Amino acid sequence: MDNRPIGIFDSGVGGLTVASQVIKQLENEEIVYFGDTARVPYGNKSKEIITKFSCQDVRFLLSKNVKAVIIACNTASANSLDDLINKFDVPVFGVVVPGAKEAVRVTQNQKVGIIATIGTVRSDAYKKAINIVNANVQVYSKACPLFVPLAEEGWANEEITRLTAEKYLKELIEKGVDTVVMGCTHYPLLRQCLQSVVGNEVRLVDPAYETAMAIKEYLVKNNMLRVAETKPQHSFFVSDTTDMFEKICSKALEKRYSTEEIDIESY
Amino acid sequence: MDNRPIGIFDSGVGGLTVASQVIKQLENEEIVYFGDTARVPYGNKSKEIITKFSCQDVRFLLSKNVKAVIIACNTASANSLDDLINKFDVPVFGVVVPGAKEAVRVTQNQKVGIIATIGTVRSDAYKKAINIVNANVQVYSKACPLFVPLAEEGWANEEITRLTAEKYLKELIEKGVDTVVMGCTHYPLLRQCLQSVVGNEVRLVDPAYETAMAIKEYLVKNNMLRVAETKPQHSFFVSDTTDMFEKICSKALEKRYSTEEIDIESY
Repeated sequence: MDNRPIGIFDSGVGGLTVASQVIKQLENEEIVYFGDTARVPYGNKSKEIITKFSCQDVRFLLSKNVKAVIIACNTASANSLDDLINKFDVPVFGVVVPGAKEAVRVTQNQKVGIIATIGTVRSDAYKKAINIVNANVQVYSKACPLFVPLAEEGWANEEITRLTAEKYLKELIEKGVDTVVMGCTHYPLLRQCLQSVVGNEVRLVDPAYETAMAIKEYLVKNNMLRVAETKPQHSFFVSDTTDMFEKICSKALEKRYSTEEIDIESY
Repeated sequence: MDNRPIGIFDSGVGGLTVASQVIKQLENEEIVYFGDTARVPYGNKSKEIITKFSCQDVRFLLSKNVKAVIIACNTASANSLDDLINKFDVPVFGVVVPGAKEAVRVTQNQKVGIIATIGTVRSDAYKKAINIVNANVQVYSKACPLFVPLAEEGWANEEITRLTAEKYLKELIEKGVDTVVMGCTHYPLLRQCLQSVVGNEVRLVDPAYETAMAIKEYLVKNNMLRVAETKPQHSFFVSDTTDMFEKICSKALEKRYSTEEIDIESY
């Protein structure tokens, strides 16, 4: 057994969807969440800067004595997973590999679409991860930078969002994909709109659930589950205190948590 | 005379429109530009974080021996100008006061609209600056968080952008404003669309030009103009190297400049 908490970091609020899945699938585990709200987003930045920020994020989580780290941010998973694994002794999990595996599992025509940030698409990480599992799967990627601000505006059901989705997804639909990975933690907030644009026969994959299952499998296999009779206590840290974090946090986790602000640049 | 350069900082690329105006209006001056591309945007962050980042930005510019600092970013001008003036010995200019003065000058019905980021609207800085000049002017503000990503996508002439502008500007139009301040450096990229939505009788104010005129007036009055026969050499620094900066830089300044990456967190 290992009663230390699981660390989760993200560029901001998006990773709370991953935290929510981890809490659901591993209900006896404690989590320490860090959202880098001062430097959000990571999605349009260079690999070098994303990796630098991600290292600071991991160092902060290690200061909280975590037993494993989940990179909830797709952009950081896609750009920095290998560097973080090499640099730190703690086991590190990204969201890309679990999402890629699930896409390979569900596709029937071997054509998969990836929608993600500019930084994730540039990295080609989903394509690489999918083709390691099955080299015959065709992968088509499309960066969708407007989806995050549309989700944050709460415009999930607006005509503007539908038109934007049609514009971004046109190419993928034309390629005939039967599976689309929502490769950014915000995108599930637009799920209904995305589903109606791609059509009901196309499967949308959300890597958050798959990631939670992957860490569960790892902890079980390595005998690292928390064994304690006390209820788990979760902690939330941010690098900038904004209303949005607390609002989305209580919505995603269906409970109010207080958050503490820390100076991430000092890590 | 004072042959030192003028420092200009912004959260990213947007401030290049201000730099362009300064270069045009003060063609013998040298500028040092810093774009905080690693931590962009500032628009949805707290006053405290915006001020912390702005102080680092000024310290970096001071290390380049600048004679004055222009905050090209509306969000930083709106949230941090007073703190920067108090903290540093160098003269500091924001874009809000020049924009506000121009709005008061051009409005005929004393009803002015402000469109800006969440952080600028929250600060109420434009309203305060306008009402210092003329307490009778009614000011209506609207945060438009989608305009920056729309401008960065290059979607200035898309139906999506028109619908978004109609949605954001509806309230201001209903209030009967005859003047709208484009209170974010990206918005002039959408000028044509914005003008068609508000109608030709409404004046759009771009604070960049007014800011360049304000610093010119200051330098003349204080005998601080550069007097040299050599052509001015401009320098550009960023905290993250991305294609977008160089692309927008050569477009805005109609010339290619090389940029140097620096570690802003160490300032």
